[in-house]
Amino acid sequence: MKIDLSFSAAQFDDLQLRDKNVVVLDVLRASSTITVALNNGAREVIPVASIESAVKISGSLFGEVTLRGGERNGKTIEGFNLGNSPLEYSEAAVKGKSIIYCTTNGSVAMAKSRYARALIIGSFLNLTTVVDFIREENKDFLFICAGRINTLGFFSLEDAVCAGMMIQKLMKIESLELNLSDSAKAAHALYKSFGRSILKMLKTSEHGKFLIEIGFADDLKICAAVDSVPVLPVQIENKIKLKKEEPPVVSL
Amino acid sequence: MKIDLSFSAAQFDDLQLRDKNVVVLDVLRASSTITVALNNGAREVIPVASIESAVKISGSLFGEVTLRGGERNGKTIEGFNLGNSPLEYSEAAVKGKSIIYCTTNGSVAMAKSRYARALIIGSFLNLTTVVDFIREENKDFLFICAGRINTLGFFSLEDAVCAGMMIQKLMKIESLELNLSDSAKAAHALYKSFGRSILKMLKTSEHGKFLIEIGFADDLKICAAVDSVPVLPVQIENKIKLKKEEPPVVSL
Repeated sequence: MKIDLSFSAAQFDDLQLRDKNVVVLDVLRASSTITVALNNGAREVIPVASIESAVKISGSLFGEVTLRGGERNGKTIEGFNLGNSPLEYSEAAVKGKSIIYCTTNGSVAMAKSRYARALIIGSFLNLTTVVDFIREENKDFLFICAGRINTLGFFSLEDAVCAGMMIQKLMKIESLELNLSDSAKAAHALYKSFGRSILKMLKTSEHGKFLIEIGFADDLKICAAVDSVPVLPVQIENKIKLKKEEPPVVSL
Repeated sequence: MKIDLSFSAAQFDDLQLRDKNVVVLDVLRASSTITVALNNGAREVIPVASIESAVKISGSLFGEVTLRGGERNGKTIEGFNLGNSPLEYSEAAVKGKSIIYCTTNGSVAMAKSRYARALIIGSFLNLTTVVDFIREENKDFLFICAGRINTLGFFSLEDAVCAGMMIQKLMKIESLELNLSDSAKAAHALYKSFGRSILKMLKTSEHGKFLIEIGFADDLKICAAVDSVPVLPVQIENKIKLKKEEPPVVSL
């Protein structure tokens, strides 16, 4: 199986990703927050690429069961119910709700992947669960690091390191024949260079420092907790939901 | 001084790069070939973003002193005088000529940098010369790896490693106060992981393997030769020329 990787989603258009098996990583914080929200009982998350789309879509939905969540410059969008901190997506807040979700990088990367054959949401929280899914599928996969469109580098170290840690785990599975692209090899090397302490890496990353500055230091601890929320958010009919275990086939 | 870096030029538009000090790296082969061409006496290189632009511009120039060079899929463009191998840009071929230059990644990244405050062409061939220039300028710089727009990763390992090697040299200059972005730190880590043998890295890179396959193995040796062509191609009035030493100031 071929493993490819992009350090940013900025250059993709959605038709390019049609028929690909995609893992979108936005460690700080979209991927982590979605994983927490679904684990806390949210019915579904609908990622959109712009505030305008969020407003348009939520206008046609029932107010009681629909929430709008996301951020601009790390903070809650005016008129939205929730920001982008995983701490806000508690069971009390989200159980049974549909969440229209709009962030600067993560939800954009997810919206661009809407025509993908498979779209998986990956973070440190569900790292081994994602790796297990890729192993079972045994098909070509593309890791898309959401990156940061508002910087000149369009790059998130934390997304690259998380993808690299997943690749490291895939490399250890003897039954897989892995063919890594140069970018996938690079992400793996970045995990080796920066992945010794995930929390320290997050705290010293550009994005992590920004989040600490605006008061979200606690989010970093949550987003650094490897395998703390072992569930698999996947796209089903343009919505992100938890993958259900398929019922066992019963022979009659 | 702040050092920032992008692993691809695909996501930039030219106005974003206005007023930046930019080093464009396309190790295989645009940056290396331009450096060789100018060192062999070419008058100037005019990078363009498309074949259409190349045809339009060269139509208004004198045939005898103008050449068209570049590649599509690594090979000479139909109707062009030269391909993209540095071996073709000998003194006999290019001395005194203006070269309209069109490639898949490198010339596009250079054309996008046309409004930059300073645009420098960097490769292994002129590595220390580029580092010396940055040291003397002592201003913020942005490394733009041309990357590969025709791959899903938009990534060139060789460009990242070359930029990382330049950053390593800058880090060793005690008088500089460097502030590295996360992407610049990542490129430095990739140099540490993959930069032990530049020729081996090129030979095992995706782009290097492709060039070997289509008959350009010799180009890899030329492009791997660190500091073999110690000149500085810079943009002057929308053309790439060799930077001339400024005459010493004479006190009267």
